[in-house]
Amino acid sequence: MKIHAFASLAPKEPLQPFTYEVETLGSFEVLIKVSHCGLCHSDIHLIDDNWKRSKYPLVPGHEIVGTITKKGSAVDHLKIGQRVGVSWIHSACMECATCLEGETNICQQKKTTCNEHFGGFADHMVADGRFSFPIPETLDSAHAAPLLCAGSTVYAPLRNHHIQAPHSVAVIGIGGLGHLALQFAAAFGCAVTAISHSAEKETEAKSFGAHRFLTLEKPPAPNQFDFIISTVHADLDWNLILSLLKPKGTLCFVGRPKNVAPIDVSSLVSFQKNITGSATANRALMHEMLAFAARHKIKPKIEIFPLAHVNQAIEKVKANKVRYRVVLEIAN
Amino acid sequence: MKIHAFASLAPKEPLQPFTYEVETLGSFEVLIKVSHCGLCHSDIHLIDDNWKRSKYPLVPGHEIVGTITKKGSAVDHLKIGQRVGVSWIHSACMECATCLEGETNICQQKKTTCNEHFGGFADHMVADGRFSFPIPETLDSAHAAPLLCAGSTVYAPLRNHHIQAPHSVAVIGIGGLGHLALQFAAAFGCAVTAISHSAEKETEAKSFGAHRFLTLEKPPAPNQFDFIISTVHADLDWNLILSLLKPKGTLCFVGRPKNVAPIDVSSLVSFQKNITGSATANRALMHEMLAFAARHKIKPKIEIFPLAHVNQAIEKVKANKVRYRVVLEIAN
Repeated sequence: MKIHAFASLAPKEPLQPFTYEVETLGSFEVLIKVSHCGLCHSDIHLIDDNWKRSKYPLVPGHEIVGTITKKGSAVDHLKIGQRVGVSWIHSACMECATCLEGETNICQQKKTTCNEHFGGFADHMVADGRFSFPIPETLDSAHAAPLLCAGSTVYAPLRNHHIQAPHSVAVIGIGGLGHLALQFAAAFGCAVTAISHSAEKETEAKSFGAHRFLTLEKPPAPNQFDFIISTVHADLDWNLILSLLKPKGTLCFVGRPKNVAPIDVSSLVSFQKNITGSATANRALMHEMLAFAARHKIKPKIEIFPLAHVNQAIEKVKANKVRYRVVLEIAN
Repeated sequence: MKIHAFASLAPKEPLQPFTYEVETLGSFEVLIKVSHCGLCHSDIHLIDDNWKRSKYPLVPGHEIVGTITKKGSAVDHLKIGQRVGVSWIHSACMECATCLEGETNICQQKKTTCNEHFGGFADHMVADGRFSFPIPETLDSAHAAPLLCAGSTVYAPLRNHHIQAPHSVAVIGIGGLGHLALQFAAAFGCAVTAISHSAEKETEAKSFGAHRFLTLEKPPAPNQFDFIISTVHADLDWNLILSLLKPKGTLCFVGRPKNVAPIDVSSLVSFQKNITGSATANRALMHEMLAFAARHKIKPKIEIFPLAHVNQAIEKVKANKVRYRVVLEIAN
């Protein structure tokens, strides 16, 4: 069948209508009729080739919700007509030590949904059924879409680092990822602090679950957080931020700063502090996150654009004017 | 009583004979007749004021073994005549959240044995009984001394990061700390790799328990270690070293590089890698480490100097000619 998509044909150019043919499905593949797809900053990094690894033509989109219209011979656990979501990971090798432990999102051979593969800015897409996650009934498709990448990326570290209700958690950057991180951390029962350079986000940050709001202009008191999630791409004063951690505390990057982070190792040594990073979630946590979001009524605040207006949506994200996530709606 | 010590009176000067008076003991204090004291690189950093926080006159020495000759009214768990060891931590506040969790070595109010206090390059010293650890009978005093700082510093991270026998552990820098790290990691049953810039250390590194020996001149294969302990003070290519970790692997600094470490956060994000640090051990792990060393016959390779020759010993350490730890013997 012919798939109608929007593609980037060269770095930094507007997306163009683009069609491609799908002949047959592999044994593990499913064909998804896309209804919604989130627009993530990573899509824009790929479109603009900021990471110097983009492959053109490039169909962006990795926060995909749709229904299965066809499936490969080995896909037993999903049904035709079932509503599923697809995230950043298209597939993994399934046989390395990391995959065998279930940690498919950090497989060294993993393929991504919209670089090694055509993504979700399209009326249909082919996904790996093993990486297609049923969406709980109470989550509507438009709000479920951003959970698949932004949501899973901020949820997984809370679980992997064993964050519990008594912990004090700070979220740096209240955007697409950050506004979901506040909601998840609040639902975990934590003491939640939002840290932003935009003072005008205070009221809304508190509506997402932050108990406190800080800016970095006036350096906050040291030694107060167990866990800090940084969602920003800016180069902050990371040693100042490490000073905000309690002994044994952890700074977790889910956003990638533009430049290398100059870390003063002394504070790590003297107080057993930790620096880590995370992106999306393994398959078990993806299922768990969706169920948790449904149970706690966690949802992104979104602005919906028709797919045909994708270039306008990209400009609005680049101008930092979206509150807080764009979701593209695909008319079928 | 009058205590006869060696002290540093100004940065980078040779130590001088130095006496001071002890009138009475505080309730938690013990007077220790010192028999042996290790010479650690941290002593030299303090003597030379490399950390810009040395307080003169400064009596170095924080790997102390001796016997208790007097004790304060609140010291019930130790006996006069008992052999004990003292490490880097003189005392902690005992009331902050960190202390209440038992993590006294990362208390923000902790005092150090030989900067906020007179250390072990002396015939006697005053210690806090709560930070004086009985030495297991089968450990001789000269070999027990370096375990107290060097040993505890490489032991604690293995425990705090839940290192188990199937893990692959690398030790960077085969010196005072590194040669003990190899022994502990081997006793944990791990696959142990020594990484050194001195190719001539290969045979000895293997005698300490390393199964493999690598230099960094030829970059080792990526993705092979679960845990890397760096004991060095040099500025290495930390991003190359992070590439040697498997997904979810951890780089633990126990040595402090001279300069800030420029970290490419991307590899942390993409593969959930971790950077951490550690120094000495909490009191529970200090007891455990001593018992473990006794049970596994782990001991440092030492060169003994009489205390009167301390300046020669310091020169030999600075010239990187000691294999692998100096212990000062105090004639009483």
